[in-house]
Parts: sequence; structure tokens; C-alpha cells
Amino acid sequence: MRIGVLTSGGDCPGLNAVIRSVVHRAVVDHGDEVIGFHDGWKGLLECDYRKLDLDAVSGILARGGTILGSSRVQPAHLRGGVERARGHVAELGLDAIIPIGGEGTLKAARLLSDAGLPIVGVPKTIDNDIAVTDVTFGFDTAVGVATEALDRLKTTAESHQRVLIVEVMGRHTGWIALHSGMAAGAHAIVVPERPFDIEELTRVVGERFSMGKKFAIVVVAEGAKPVEGTMKFDVGGKDIYGHERFAGVAQQLSIELEQRLGKEARAVILGHVQRGGTPTAYDRVLATRFGWHAVEAVHRGEFGKMTALHGTEIVMVPLAEAVETLKTVPEARYAEAQTVL
Amino acid sequence: MRIGVLTSGGDCPGLNAVIRSVVHRAVVDHGDEVIGFHDGWKGLLECDYRKLDLDAVSGILARGGTILGSSRVQPAHLRGGVERARGHVAELGLDAIIPIGGEGTLKAARLLSDAGLPIVGVPKTIDNDIAVTDVTFGFDTAVGVATEALDRLKTTAESHQRVLIVEVMGRHTGWIALHSGMAAGAHAIVVPERPFDIEELTRVVGERFSMGKKFAIVVVAEGAKPVEGTMKFDVGGKDIYGHERFAGVAQQLSIELEQRLGKEARAVILGHVQRGGTPTAYDRVLATRFGWHAVEAVHRGEFGKMTALHGTEIVMVPLAEAVETLKTVPEARYAEAQTVL
Amino acid sequence: MRIGVLTSGGDCPGLNAVIRSVVHRAVVDHGDEVIGFHDGWKGLLECDYRKLDLDAVSGILARGGTILGSSRVQPAHLRGGVERARGHVAELGLDAIIPIGGEGTLKAARLLSDAGLPIVGVPKTIDNDIAVTDVTFGFDTAVGVATEALDRLKTTAESHQRVLIVEVMGRHTGWIALHSGMAAGAHAIVVPERPFDIEELTRVVGERFSMGKKFAIVVVAEGAKPVEGTMKFDVGGKDIYGHERFAGVAQQLSIELEQRLGKEARAVILGHVQRGGTPTAYDRVLATRFGWHAVEAVHRGEFGKMTALHGTEIVMVPLAEAVETLKTVPEARYAEAQTVL
Amino acid sequence: MRIGVLTSGGDCPGLNAVIRSVVHRAVVDHGDEVIGFHDGWKGLLECDYRKLDLDAVSGILARGGTILGSSRVQPAHLRGGVERARGHVAELGLDAIIPIGGEGTLKAARLLSDAGLPIVGVPKTIDNDIAVTDVTFGFDTAVGVATEALDRLKTTAESHQRVLIVEVMGRHTGWIALHSGMAAGAHAIVVPERPFDIEELTRVVGERFSMGKKFAIVVVAEGAKPVEGTMKFDVGGKDIYGHERFAGVAQQLSIELEQRLGKEARAVILGHVQRGGTPTAYDRVLATRFGWHAVEAVHRGEFGKMTALHGTEIVMVPLAEAVETLKTVPEARYAEAQTVL
Repeated sequence: MRIGVLTSGGDCPGLNAVIRSVVHRAVVDHGDEVIGFHDGWKGLLECDYRKLDLDAVSGILARGGTILGSSRVQPAHLRGGVERARGHVAELGLDAIIPIGGEGTLKAARLLSDAGLPIVGVPKTIDNDIAVTDVTFGFDTAVGVATEALDRLKTTAESHQRVLIVEVMGRHTGWIALHSGMAAGAHAIVVPERPFDIEELTRVVGERFSMGKKFAIVVVAEGAKPVEGTMKFDVGGKDIYGHERFAGVAQQLSIELEQRLGKEARAVILGHVQRGGTPTAYDRVLATRFGWHAVEAVHRGEFGKMTALHGTEIVMVPLAEAVETLKTVPEARYAEAQTVL
Repeated sequence: MRIGVLTSGGDCPGLNAVIRSVVHRAVVDHGDEVIGFHDGWKGLLECDYRKLDLDAVSGILARGGTILGSSRVQPAHLRGGVERARGHVAELGLDAIIPIGGEGTLKAARLLSDAGLPIVGVPKTIDNDIAVTDVTFGFDTAVGVATEALDRLKTTAESHQRVLIVEVMGRHTGWIALHSGMAAGAHAIVVPERPFDIEELTRVVGERFSMGKKFAIVVVAEGAKPVEGTMKFDVGGKDIYGHERFAGVAQQLSIELEQRLGKEARAVILGHVQRGGTPTAYDRVLATRFGWHAVEAVHRGEFGKMTALHGTEIVMVPLAEAVETLKTVPEARYAEAQTVL
Repeated sequence: MRIGVLTSGGDCPGLNAVIRSVVHRAVVDHGDEVIGFHDGWKGLLECDYRKLDLDAVSGILARGGTILGSSRVQPAHLRGGVERARGHVAELGLDAIIPIGGEGTLKAARLLSDAGLPIVGVPKTIDNDIAVTDVTFGFDTAVGVATEALDRLKTTAESHQRVLIVEVMGRHTGWIALHSGMAAGAHAIVVPERPFDIEELTRVVGERFSMGKKFAIVVVAEGAKPVEGTMKFDVGGKDIYGHERFAGVAQQLSIELEQRLGKEARAVILGHVQRGGTPTAYDRVLATRFGWHAVEAVHRGEFGKMTALHGTEIVMVPLAEAVETLKTVPEARYAEAQTVL
Repeated sequence: MRIGVLTSGGDCPGLNAVIRSVVHRAVVDHGDEVIGFHDGWKGLLECDYRKLDLDAVSGILARGGTILGSSRVQPAHLRGGVERARGHVAELGLDAIIPIGGEGTLKAARLLSDAGLPIVGVPKTIDNDIAVTDVTFGFDTAVGVATEALDRLKTTAESHQRVLIVEVMGRHTGWIALHSGMAAGAHAIVVPERPFDIEELTRVVGERFSMGKKFAIVVVAEGAKPVEGTMKFDVGGKDIYGHERFAGVAQQLSIELEQRLGKEARAVILGHVQRGGTPTAYDRVLATRFGWHAVEAVHRGEFGKMTALHGTEIVMVPLAEAVETLKTVPEARYAEAQTVL
């Protein structure tokens, strides 16, 4: 068989581990040929690719990033994108395409699958927001990086007797905030799923100081917002260059809490370190299993599906289901976390 | 309510996180009182304990070990052990006991539960060998430590053109070997569930050298054994002090592979570093959730059970089921790993 | 003897290691008594302290922060500060004070020493800007944290084909930028000692892209500034709350480079993670040695000095010399780094 | 100019960083040509090499091992080795050779230099035993790895109430034991420079238990030996395969201490993890500087010397001096460490 693989969307630790696993399983065990498209869907649309043999994937298992490059190009955004993809699949004699990507990529995958192309998806997201899979690779690494930073910040907050508001990734969901906050023992966790009440937050943090504690750590997902009308909240503006610039939620919270509590408060924005670098062992194992099972699905002719983790098993779920809803933090999980406030 | 908690058996990253979570949930949210028995069941049998309030568990979330100490004492091993435990539970007015431990501890927990004591167990094992839960805390940390060591050893093996045989924990099951081996891209993984054929192993490693590769990494679980009769295998002996000493499997494999392959081979035994130190974020979250749900089970009067992870949910399973069988590595998982040889 | 110890100024990994070492050497080996003042000079001025015995310093060697707390209060800033300090030293029967701190603290130490108080200083700074010592503890940890972040960011920059501008600590000196930039293989390093020429910087980064490379990493110290007149540079302004807010150098550079290069550019500000958390082994050893030698100086009556590292030796240098000049990055070191651009 | 570079002897984190730095400085800044010999001196003797350009050293800065491979072959061991080396230098038109290696390599370098070949050495050793340089790259990483392992082992020792004897690298010198032991707060440190008195060691550890402590960590360098006649000490023997096998010092100490103290004692041998993997930021900076200055020495025609760190400066010292004596742990340093017992 001849299989094409591509990585699309934002960086995510474990992408290389999937590519390597696909090549190992397909080439070594099945005698397939594997090609890798460059820069995501762009490579498919422009027929830009290279052959992937064992040497090409040697030493990449533990490396962050993707040897194939990535982009945010989507076939549907381009005039005739689907037809062009179909043409290249035929031209290259591909029996299957394995796109590795997040929500947008999986939607594109579904579109191509509906158009009759032989697709097996592999989900990736550091945000853990893809439904129908317990988790995807990248999330564990992101949580690990954030937790390590929080561990470090705690001693500084304590020495300086400060409130630290730490902004982690998560525009639409609060999974990274929830898990890193629980893991590091944050004193408050603020997620996009639940608009925060600034007075309640002030009360929670203030209570800690009344108990004689000398610092507090608040973890906030970048997409968190206040309950409407409870707090002045900047939704953007222009900087000296005329660029639209948004003041982050952490910065705004730090100003607000400093004023309300009379305690020094500082914002820390962890940023891109959460989505790069060496994946954790957990993510490498999951990514490797996803790659292996994607190849098996190809050989079974089970198209229009993607790999998913259910408990300890890798299963195949229809792409249609995968992209229907965003997986948000349920109330029950939030309750568990509040206990550790 | 009044709840007693204890930690029993070998060290395991996340024990302190469970203790902390039990105290937070019980004391803060339910207004319970929590006491901690010292040194596992020994503390219960000798009525040796201390009160656990918020201050007692401050700052322990990320710390390895257990603030309560541990031991391998089991109630059933002591004359009148069960009766003594019952007496102390009554004397101290305890509404529940939460023992945190591995297979042996959970068996003891079941025994006490069958004898009518109000028990809610929390499983722990770095070995991942407890059935009925997808995983327990401690395993992710152990795999992470082993993987990091393997990452380091790879560059050394490569520079020195050697075969490195790395022994990881796992007397009865090969989970740590499987996951760390997959995560680090080991070239062969040897587990107790499948006695190894030394000729097959020599062939696999030898093939790598024939392909022009200059080194190989073999991960072996400490409990692995050869297929009977295929290789001289030391089952113990006396050292100069007259102590019974076993030659480890890694050391014996290194000698055997060196002779058969004509390549320098070395054994590395990772040992206790795998079971101590700061837990990963994954283990801290799981341990915290286990503690939280154990307290909830106590308040629902759901005794004779233990916490377990099913997918993303924490559920309660009967202690009776938990200790029936050891969870071993299934063939299907082993197959996935062989691909990455 | 009776010795008082205090920690003053910003957080710095290794403070606890010094405190522990002072107590071990003084109490165990010399039979001294040690007290610790709370919150830096404030504790001395307000006679707020506690006894430090072996138990008090147990388990703190590897912990970030300071068990004594810190503040930025300086004796000279308070009316009668020096006299009050002198009074408390007499009242408490102290034979020596060991202040552990940065430039400001050492200046205060010199002031008190000149006023006749028995002072032995211990320098600390993550910035590495104290002259007369090769290095102080805290710097190695800060560089390590920044380097690890840069390692992670590289894979992301590469996957996304971006320029990343990473802002590290260093208001007046570029040591952290220089070392972390060299260690991570940054493509340009911008330090406060050398105002940057935006055209030159654009040229250097642009050349990389012309060579076919797909990303670039620029490390910039927070205090870096452009050559005057070469680039619009924000020196502050008011946000929606009326707070004075400065746009960081990284953010301004990212906008400027994006426009000039036509490549996506992003700013990452590492912030406080660089100054907290577990110290590296290097910093723990240095901090321990500083503490040990400070006690020896006290016993030799060698006051008005501070500990310093010269090569592999710990020596005592006059406080007067220590605070005379800031240690900046010399041209020769910068030249070494440019090579690795 | 045309420069040959090679790496010889055991693995050491930072070798790739030196190679990369040599290439960057020589090729980019001086317009030189650089070739790399394979597998140490062997490559020079067999004229086995490849060209090293910027692409060849891309991405290797943070990678352990050496892209050139290594071996323990020495020119002097081979009949006509020196003459063969001279012949190849002439044949390849080399203006200089930069060998990177430890004591043995530097002795060979001196030999070739005395024979008139243009040599500039770069010292490497994880053991820190090369005189005339304050430190070399590799040592900081080894100490860091050992310290991290010790940090983990402490919590396990504490939970299990054990004495752990941890064997670190160091056949002839105790630098890694000293620094990792100080950094981790070991309770006793045993080095080759000072034969240990088993009674004294038993007393020190026993005192700890008398003080109510429940565990102890002893760090021992692999080359440590007891004072003659004070303890039965295994100096080798044959295993079941007829191989000569030595019982390590840690294992023997653990048996001895267990018997004398009546406390459970266990040996942990850290082994090769100390010499592989990603170098610390410290080692990367030092290695990069060494490479840069080696190229400068070549261009100044300053042969027969090697790079060395004196304080914060890189200087050139004669190879003759470098290999005269082994740098051992001086009494004064040992005294500092005993304080932290």
C-alpha cells in the first residue's frame, strides 16, 4: 500500500512520535510505502512531499515539533481544494491519507472523507478539547510544563508575599488550567467554561490571607472572562503601532485583585513553552499507539474514522462524531478542583 | 465524621497528594476530623496516630514519600490483628478507615472489610498491576523517570557502540518496561509475562547491527526470565558474606548478548529512583481525585470498595474484585511495542 | 557565639541552602546559636526573629524561596534605622549578622558595617551583576530555566515558521540572555550593555531566512534598548485603569521584526519562573560553601567583607569593593556569542 | 585553513557543543574548512573522516553523545601510529588538529605535539579530574543527574526507614560524590582520596538514627576503598560464566552497614546515566567557549596547548602541564562537605 501522512495546525508534542510510528508499522511490518506531505494540507494541495523511510524517522521520537512542518491552510478555504486533493491522491496512487491535527484539521478530514477520499485521522490537541477520545497526546506535556512553572512560581510568590496570576493556554476550554492548577495546588482556578465573579474570587483569595497565609496562586485559562457587568474588562485596543492588542486576562486580574485586596499582585503568562519541546513519556506512548492503530485501520479499510483512547484501549470513532462538539470541563470535575482551593 | 487514613507498602509518588486531598475534602468541605496512622497498618494495630489538619498537609502535594510513614506489616500476620484493629476503631470512634496501598494492602483491607470494618481503599502501585482500575498513581512517574534515564543512556550507547541492557522495576508484570521502552524507542522489550528466547533476542539485536546501526537498547523488567532450558540462568547464590545474592537478569543478559553478538554489552539497573521523588502532574491529579472520591464514598457509606479510574471517571469497585487477579500486559499491547523495535 | 542571619531583596534559588549551611556549620561544628530575622532588614529593625536549630533547616536545601521571608526595606531608608539596628544587635547579644542579598542589601550591609556593626555578607543575584565574585548562586538556575524554555520554544518556532523573541530577566546586565542564548543556540542575543541597531538585527535574522532556515530565536534581556533614534520605542503609558504600563522590549521587537521581515513574529516573556523553585546542583553547592565560609569569617572576626568565588576558591572581599560597580557583559564575551548566531 | 577535529574516550555531555562551536567559528568567521575524524584517533590513523559544514552541526548543541563517534584507540598503542598520523595530516593538508578528550586523549595529544604535529586540545571529563582547568564540561551535567537521583531516593529512604548507599562515578577522584552529596544533603560522602574507616562511617550514620532520624543517605564514589584491614573487601572474583566480576563498593557497604547498624540498607548504582544525555546550560556554554577559543589558538599558531577555564576566563595551558597530575579533592573541600553531614 501507499500511505500519505501530514501534520496540520499548531505545534503539539508527540507529532513526530506519530509520524515515526506510522512509518515503523507500515514500512517494517506491512511492507507499505509512506510519503509525508510538507506543511499540512498545503503539501497535499501542492503535491509537495517526500518519501519517509526508517532513516527519515530515526531519532525523532522524543523531539518536539514536526519534521513535516505544519500550516493552517484548509482544503475547503481554497477554490477547488477538494478536487485538487482528489487529483493528487489519484496521481500519487495513494491508498490512504493520515492527517494528524486538531479540530480544524479533523473537520477538513471529514470533508475530504465525505468527498470519497480514504482518510484515517489522528487527533492532536494540547487543549484536550476533542470529544470522543479520553485524551490526546500533547495535553500531558502541556500540563507538565505548566505544573513545573507553577511549582517554581510558588516559592517566589511566598518569598515576596504576593498574589500571582498565572495564565495558561486554553481559549475555549479550561483543561490545562484545571489539571495544572490541581497538580500544583493552586488556590483558585479560573476557566472559560465558567465566567468568574470577581467578588467571589477576591473573597476566596482574601480568605487565604485572613488565615495567615502569605501568598496565593491563581491559575487562569487565557480564554476566561468575568461574569458580564461585574468588572471592567478590556476587549482590545490599539498600541503605538496601530496594532490591535488585547490586554490578557491575567494582567487585568492582577490589577483588579491588587486594588481589591491591597496585596501586591503580578501576572505571569506562560505562553508557547506549553506547546513545544520533548513530549512526556505518556504522550510518546499514546502518540505511538495512535500511529500504529491508524495504519491498522488503513489496512482494514476502515476509513472516515479517527483513532481515540477509551480507557486503556485504542478504538476507531467516526470523524463525524469527533468534530460535533467541544469537550468542556464538566461541573463535577470543577467541583473536585475547588476542594483543593 | 472521624476518618483514619494510612499508607502501607512500598514508596510510591502521589501518596502525600492523596493524604492531602482526603484532609482538604473531609476537613474543609465536610467538617470531618481526620487522623493519620503511622507506618501503615502498624499504626492502626498499635494505636499510633496523629491529627491531620490543613497545616499538617501544607506543602506536601508535590513531595515524594509519605508523611505518615509506611511498613509492610499486615493485620492478618499478627495474632488477633483483626480484633485489635476493630478495638481501636471503636476506641477512637472512627467512622471510616482509608488505607492507601498496593495489592497486599488491599487484600488486608478486604479482610478487615469482610470482618465488618468501614473501609474505603485507595489503590497505589508503580507497577500498574492492579486490575479493575485503568491505572493508579505512581506508574506515570516511574515510567517518566525510566524514560528520562533511557533518553540519556541512548547517546552513551551510541557513542560507545554498545548494547545497553537496562533493568526497570516489575517483578511480575512488564508495564514499566513496556511503556518506558515504547516511550524511549528501545530496540527490544523483555517482560515477565513472556519468557524470552535468548536466540530470538540475539537475532533481533543482531539484525540492528547488520542494518548498520551502531548500538542497541534493551529494556528488561526485573522479573523477566528465559524460556526454560534455552539459557543458563542464575537463580541465586551466596556472596563472600554468606548472603544469598541473586545476579539480576540485566547482568546475565549483558554477558550472554556480549558473547553471542561479539559486541560490548553493559547492564544498567535503574533501581529505587523509579519509586521516589516528586510525582508527575498526571499522578498528582489522579491521586488528588482518588482522595476526594474516597471521602465521598465514606459519606455515602459505600464501604468495602476502592477508588478506580475508568476512562476519565473515578468509580468505586468492590475490594473483592480488585485483588482477584494481577493485571498483566496483554499480547495486543506487546504487539504494538514490537513494531517499534 | 550568637549569629543573626537574614535574607533581603528578590527571590533567588539557593537562599535556603545558605541559611541551612550557616546553621549546620555554626550550630553543629562551633556550638554557636543562630537566629533568623524575618523579612530581611525589617526583622532586624523590628526585632522580629526566631531561633534556627537543625530541625528548623531540615529539608530546605533543595527548596526555592526563603524560610525567613524577604522584603525590600533598607535600614538607611528609615529614620534612625542604623541606630535601631545597632540597638537590637546589642540587646540580642549578637556577635555577627550575616545578611544574604543583592546589590541593595550589600550596600546596606556596608553602611551598617561602616557604622561599626559586625557584618559578613553573602551575595545573591540571579542577574550575575555583582562584581568581585566570579558568580553567585541563583544565576545558574535562572539560566537553566531560561535554556529549558528556549529548547522547548525552538521546536514550536520551527513548526510554525516564526521568529520568536524571548524576553529573559536582566534590567541592567545581559548575563542571563548571553548564557541562555549561547546554551540554546539562539540566533541573536540582545543585551542592555549594547543598545541594538534594529536594522542590523533585522539583517542578521533575515540572513537566516535567506539561507533557507525556517525560523529564528532572538533572546532579549528585559532592559535592552535600541540605539536612540533608530526605532520608535515605547517608554510607558497608561492602560485602561490609569496604571502606568510599559510595553516590554520583546513585544515591541516582535512587531518591528514582523513588519520589516514579513515573517510572523511572536513575543514570549519568561518572567518570574526564572527566579523561583529548586536550585540546580551548582547553585546548591555554591550556596552551601558561601554559608560555611561566612561562618568561618565570623569566627575569625573578619567583618565588613562578603564571600566570593574566585576560580574554585571561596575568598572574602571587602563590601566596599563589592558594591562599587555593576559587573556587565564585556565585549569579548559578546563576541564569543555572536559566533554562535 | 583546514582543521581536523575528533572526539576520543568515554561519552561526555557537551562534546557535540564543542564540535558545533569549532565549525561555527572556523567556517563562518574565518572561512576555514573543518573535517571531523570518525571514532577518535582511529579516524585519524585510518584516514576516516567527513566534511563538517554548518548543516552537519545543525541541531546538535543540546544533544548528548558525539556525532563523530569515539573509541579508546591511542596512536602510541599502534606500531607506527605517530608516523601514520603525521602522514595523514600532510596528505589532508591539515593546519591543525583539535582532539577533544580526557586524560588519555590529552596524553596522546601531547605525544603528537611533541612529535611536531599542530595540536590544540580541548579537555573533557565528567570526573573533573583534569588539573590546570577549574572545571571541564560534562561534570556539571553528571553532578546534576546524580543530584536529581539523590533527591528522588531521599523520599524513598525516608518512607522505608532505610540506609541507602548510592554509588556515583569516580574511579580515582571523588568530585561527583562530593558535589552531588553536598547538593542533595547526603549524610556521609565517601571518596577515593580518603580510604574510609567503616567504624567511623557506622558511627556517623548511627548517630543520625540516635537523633531520631529515620533514614540516611550515603554517597560513595565507585573507586572508594576502606582503610586497609578494617573491613573484608572484595577485590573481584568469578561469576557463573567464569567472568571476572567485582562486587561494587556500594553493595559491600550496604551489607556491612546493615549488619553493624541493624537497619535495612540498600545499594543503588547510578551508572551510565551520569555520562549521557542533554548537557546542562552550564556545560553547553563552557563547551561552546572551549570550541571558540580552540579555533582562535589555531589561528594564532598557539599549538601544544589546550583550552582551560580560569575563573571566568578561557586561557591556553601547555598540554605538558595538563596531564602531569590528577586533580583530587583537597582536604579543605572535604571539610566543607563534612559539615553538611
